[in-house]
Amino acid sequence: MSALALRFDPDDERLARVAWSRLLEPGDERATTLIGAVGPAEALRALVEQRAEWLVRFVPRLADLDPVRDLDGVRRLGGRVVLPSEPEWPSAFDVLAAPPPCLWVRGPAALDEVAQRSVAVVGARAATSYGEHVAGDVSCGLGERGFAVVSGLAYGIDGAAHRGALAARGVSVAVVAGGLDRAYPAGHDTLMARLAELGAVLSEVPPGSAPTRGRFLQRNRLIAALSSGTVVVEAALRSGSLNTARTAALLGRPVGAVPGPVTSPGSAGCHALLRDGVAVLVTDAAEIADLVGRMGQDTVAPRRGRSAPTDDLDPLASRVLDALPVRTGRPLDRLCATAGLDPATVQSALGRLALLGLAERQGTGWRAVRAPVERRPPAEVQARRAVRAGE
Amino acid sequence: MSALALRFDPDDERLARVAWSRLLEPGDERATTLIGAVGPAEALRALVEQRAEWLVRFVPRLADLDPVRDLDGVRRLGGRVVLPSEPEWPSAFDVLAAPPPCLWVRGPAALDEVAQRSVAVVGARAATSYGEHVAGDVSCGLGERGFAVVSGLAYGIDGAAHRGALAARGVSVAVVAGGLDRAYPAGHDTLMARLAELGAVLSEVPPGSAPTRGRFLQRNRLIAALSSGTVVVEAALRSGSLNTARTAALLGRPVGAVPGPVTSPGSAGCHALLRDGVAVLVTDAAEIADLVGRMGQDTVAPRRGRSAPTDDLDPLASRVLDALPVRTGRPLDRLCATAGLDPATVQSALGRLALLGLAERQGTGWRAVRAPVERRPPAEVQARRAVRAGE
Repeated sequence: MSALALRFDPDDERLARVAWSRLLEPGDERATTLIGAVGPAEALRALVEQRAEWLVRFVPRLADLDPVRDLDGVRRLGGRVVLPSEPEWPSAFDVLAAPPPCLWVRGPAALDEVAQRSVAVVGARAATSYGEHVAGDVSCGLGERGFAVVSGLAYGIDGAAHRGALAARGVSVAVVAGGLDRAYPAGHDTLMARLAELGAVLSEVPPGSAPTRGRFLQRNRLIAALSSGTVVVEAALRSGSLNTARTAALLGRPVGAVPGPVTSPGSAGCHALLRDGVAVLVTDAAEIADLVGRMGQDTVAPRRGRSAPTDDLDPLASRVLDALPVRTGRPLDRLCATAGLDPATVQSALGRLALLGLAERQGTGWRAVRAPVERRPPAEVQARRAVRAGE
Repeated sequence: MSALALRFDPDDERLARVAWSRLLEPGDERATTLIGAVGPAEALRALVEQRAEWLVRFVPRLADLDPVRDLDGVRRLGGRVVLPSEPEWPSAFDVLAAPPPCLWVRGPAALDEVAQRSVAVVGARAATSYGEHVAGDVSCGLGERGFAVVSGLAYGIDGAAHRGALAARGVSVAVVAGGLDRAYPAGHDTLMARLAELGAVLSEVPPGSAPTRGRFLQRNRLIAALSSGTVVVEAALRSGSLNTARTAALLGRPVGAVPGPVTSPGSAGCHALLRDGVAVLVTDAAEIADLVGRMGQDTVAPRRGRSAPTDDLDPLASRVLDALPVRTGRPLDRLCATAGLDPATVQSALGRLALLGLAERQGTGWRAVRAPVERRPPAEVQARRAVRAGE
């Protein structure tokens, strides 16, 4: 093997980390361990001197290595490199088995602040209009509540999530699998430009890198780690977003999943997460905020529906109300037989019902002011009324 | 108060229980306790003699009391009365705080057998077409698996559940809130007749009784108790079916809920049950059978989606596969740089990929046999393909 050499100063930490960002594939635990143990400069010297057999894997990429050129490239894009030693570095990344050597970033959002209060809103590329609607809706609501929305810039759920957050003038961050120079998919180049202008676009590979399948999978761990919690909006059984959700759960972050029609394969992945107990069922931004946010500030009460005036009736008054006709008043003795109650109990109950405006005298008897039980077959249009009435 | 008397022999247990069935309202714990303690005949004597003040509540119904006539009535309907001492009595009812004094039944299904293997499929009257479709579908699947489907004969989910079970030639049981002589709603009189012919219709009140709101609520406890488990298919936040589900949970029975679109208020009650941890998420008959049925016989494996040939690739082969072009073969040294791996590792991986039919030689290089990553924006029609491909 010919003598290897570096054409830059490895003791410049920025250059050394940028070099490693080009040399290793995301998620390389062995190289990351070496860098963590001896520092990026010494790790580079170990590579050049081939001090261990496994370091041979980095040799093919050494020929083209030029971190000064890579740094110039990201500056030309208006971007920056963030090192673990810098304030903007999200400390949440340090819990990863193999954190990136450095981050490639475009956009005004500070990553350390994003990590404080953010939700990953993820899901399938092959989304339905239902999924895209919900993704946009919850992301808008999260943006209004001051959460940054993190996603992956893909078609479908990701794109709808970014757009929803932007619509609320919220912060949105795209974590991409390839370099910052090129949008993937290309159809999202305008969206990527808007995120670079108003939020952030983040990658762990240098500009010019292709978004390979392996990088997509590793990218998912960054989405999970950067976010306070992860929500899967719509995902089929083999969606990559399930991988993001499981990673978030492994990192101890709250995970939510939005259910959908059981007739839609597009929601089967969400339902599997819920059945497996990996995720909590969430239906809107308020419930996601409750799951992910701060106690007290973001807490939401369980949904209980609108209350009806008959809700708090005691059982005896409720039985007498059931026995009251709607039109012609019924005499007391007949009310007793219908309700199966004695006269004193019925009279006392009628007094309470009258006070609540639910019963009134009519002729020599009593009648109900409004019918407590729906007597008509409910059509779809009567759904709201039926909800109120208690069935 | 004038002297009270009975116009039948209270020591005939059938007549005494039929009398109590007419005298008390469903769920009357005090009267049930008395009957349980001293027997129905002695309890009737206590009532006639007004031995306790609270027994006054039954006096108004004493005038019209005629259990012989009621028994004639149910026989004319082709029905029967089932007593707790008889083999058909479902022992599951004995766990209730106030089991009925007797049951009024039409139809060939034996209630004790129904209770062995049955699912309550319940939900809103104001159902959507989605809810009715799912109710029919799961009930048909449950019928095929030998489960009796228990429901409440209402419009919407109940009706779809009964019909789905009948379509599978399964047993279906309607537990109704009024008497067996009259269908409620009247539009379901044909359905009730079919259930009386092929399954069973069950009530705890005698023929001629009106289905009051109180009786509907008490009826729900019978649905929950008669079934091995309860599934709510579609329910708004105030649906009575949530009451059935909570009762089933209190009785220690498994409870399932079918999710739906979060944009539909008609599924909000199901989602609340799932968020509260009362119910387990179920999406089809197989998962309901797994929840409710016998271990081993009805167990279903977690859904994992179809597997792809690349699923079990080792990480290095996966990286090399990512680096392979689809058209023109790439030489080994360029593959090494793209994959970030040394020549020996890449060659070994290429051998494994070739064996799996995923890579092939082309000219002086190698190419992939099929593209591992989808490069096109997926449209709705590509959803199935995307599911298979892993996103």
